[in-house]
Amino acid sequence: MVIPDFLERLGGFCHGRGLTGVSHHIAALGQFYLSDIQMIESTVSAMPRTDHSVMKTAIHLLDLGGKRLRPLCVALASRVGNGFSGAACELAVAAELIHSATLLHDDVVDVGETRRGAPTARRVYGNAAAIFAGDWLIVEALRRVRLAKVPNVLDRLLDTLHEMILAESLQLENRGRLSAGRERYFQIVEGKTASLFRWALFSGGCAGGLTEADCTALDQYGFHLGVAFQLIDDLLDLTGDESLTGKSIGIDLREGKVTYPLIVALERDPVLGRTLERLMAENDETEAPTVQEIIATLYRTNSIDDCRTMARHRAERAVQCLAHLPPNDATQALKSVAIAAVERAG
Amino acid sequence: MVIPDFLERLGGFCHGRGLTGVSHHIAALGQFYLSDIQMIESTVSAMPRTDHSVMKTAIHLLDLGGKRLRPLCVALASRVGNGFSGAACELAVAAELIHSATLLHDDVVDVGETRRGAPTARRVYGNAAAIFAGDWLIVEALRRVRLAKVPNVLDRLLDTLHEMILAESLQLENRGRLSAGRERYFQIVEGKTASLFRWALFSGGCAGGLTEADCTALDQYGFHLGVAFQLIDDLLDLTGDESLTGKSIGIDLREGKVTYPLIVALERDPVLGRTLERLMAENDETEAPTVQEIIATLYRTNSIDDCRTMARHRAERAVQCLAHLPPNDATQALKSVAIAAVERAG
Repeated sequence: MVIPDFLERLGGFCHGRGLTGVSHHIAALGQFYLSDIQMIESTVSAMPRTDHSVMKTAIHLLDLGGKRLRPLCVALASRVGNGFSGAACELAVAAELIHSATLLHDDVVDVGETRRGAPTARRVYGNAAAIFAGDWLIVEALRRVRLAKVPNVLDRLLDTLHEMILAESLQLENRGRLSAGRERYFQIVEGKTASLFRWALFSGGCAGGLTEADCTALDQYGFHLGVAFQLIDDLLDLTGDESLTGKSIGIDLREGKVTYPLIVALERDPVLGRTLERLMAENDETEAPTVQEIIATLYRTNSIDDCRTMARHRAERAVQCLAHLPPNDATQALKSVAIAAVERAG
Repeated sequence: MVIPDFLERLGGFCHGRGLTGVSHHIAALGQFYLSDIQMIESTVSAMPRTDHSVMKTAIHLLDLGGKRLRPLCVALASRVGNGFSGAACELAVAAELIHSATLLHDDVVDVGETRRGAPTARRVYGNAAAIFAGDWLIVEALRRVRLAKVPNVLDRLLDTLHEMILAESLQLENRGRLSAGRERYFQIVEGKTASLFRWALFSGGCAGGLTEADCTALDQYGFHLGVAFQLIDDLLDLTGDESLTGKSIGIDLREGKVTYPLIVALERDPVLGRTLERLMAENDETEAPTVQEIIATLYRTNSIDDCRTMARHRAERAVQCLAHLPPNDATQALKSVAIAAVERAG
């Protein structure tokens, strides 16, 4: 049996960092959940593939794959309970569709060029199609959640979407504001990223018939996992290997997003503020050396290391949330996912 | 009591065209439904008005008013049944929010400059905020529909949104295609415009406790009303008074939208095709005389008159759908709305 790409790479990263136990768990996870992942993939593949430009735009992004971490979270959470069902599969697909919708709209807003190692959907099909494709994916996700008929999860998804959009708004308002500190940063990340992870875990738990207390514990696991995941995303924007992340280095920087490593570095070296302001004022040709200078400052001030430490800390808090859940294979797998997610390099 | 602006103007247009009976009905309608309209307006006014740029962007558009024809349809449909309730009010507001969401995204896609006599939201707050504001309004509308707890209407709204987005996609693909004929035109209009009118009437009927057959009759009334409404919108783009429509003349033309009057004129004067192609290739400075030339051709070929005739025909079909509904004041009001909607000049 083939372990899905992302999990195989994740296992590899853990092995590389000496976490051989986690590496083995991840490998076992891949074998164990392979059928769930295959069911999710075939449900995505069975989505309507008509000639409508809006559908083609959405499918362009979905077919590029990605980590499918949110659907995996739904599947694992359902297996903490009484198993992965057709309904859980629809919820898993919905989580991926919502995530994809935000990527489509974000790439229009940020004039994104590359995503998952390929030209962004808006470059291939245009901004208009990408906007409507994002709208379509939101509606398609909600229709699937509706059809799944799992109590509470539709209301929760509508609340989650509300939270995600307000966080996008907050991020927009704080673009280029170097004075935005840690509190504002976490507020944005909790809304933008963690909220969908929370929903994925919560809804998976509901589909698996878990108690309210267990679903809430999973929700809180998702909360910390989501923050940890975003911290690593911030870090990979600055230090990642482009062949693994599928996008260029320093995009957040160029877009004026004040990410966690930057906030830490700004606290430790106020001169960095002037370099960042220069970057934002620069044109394409002169900015590459400035980006390199900023990244050097981040290393020198230990901001990169501290970002990974903070991510590990949040991953540990995620694991703590699992303490009172049924101690089965799926709960164990969620532990491995949390630990591995902060060791990833792509 | 003050009759709402739009209804007063609508009554005036009917009076001007010698339809004094309809004009009186419209005036009576304004008096009769004033409290419903006030309840809808105060619900819109009570929407969250925080500092989030996304909310400010959405509120900018909502506060500019507009005709509020879709909420009026929900209110009237509910009164064909057992009356306008809090739940019906939420559905009415939801219809307006969905309509506003499409305007926000359309204005980004079409680089719209003016809407309701004011700068478009995207010009005031930027494209990014307008995209997220549209997303927010869709989610906010769905949350309200969910809270209203009227059976069937949420599923129907999700299906309606699906239909609307695919029609936007189709419109995008047919932009500038002069060969797109009547069939394609009606396919787009039915999805883009009529579907939301259908939902407004259907959901209002459901909220008013009407039978399935009555709700279906209202749905079909909405179908024909929506098509009639769009035909007049097409016509006003070419012949409207900018102070009444709130937007410049010939926008559809410049955007390459092949509207009904154009299709008719192209059938009657094939030379028009070359003029249209010239317009699409032109820059801003030279296009004004071309637009005037095209409009002259539309008058000369009777395409303008035929468009209004077609709209009147669809309005009559809408009225026919009301035949078996309870013959009360609200049903009578819907008749007047259908007749008046095609006589409007703004």
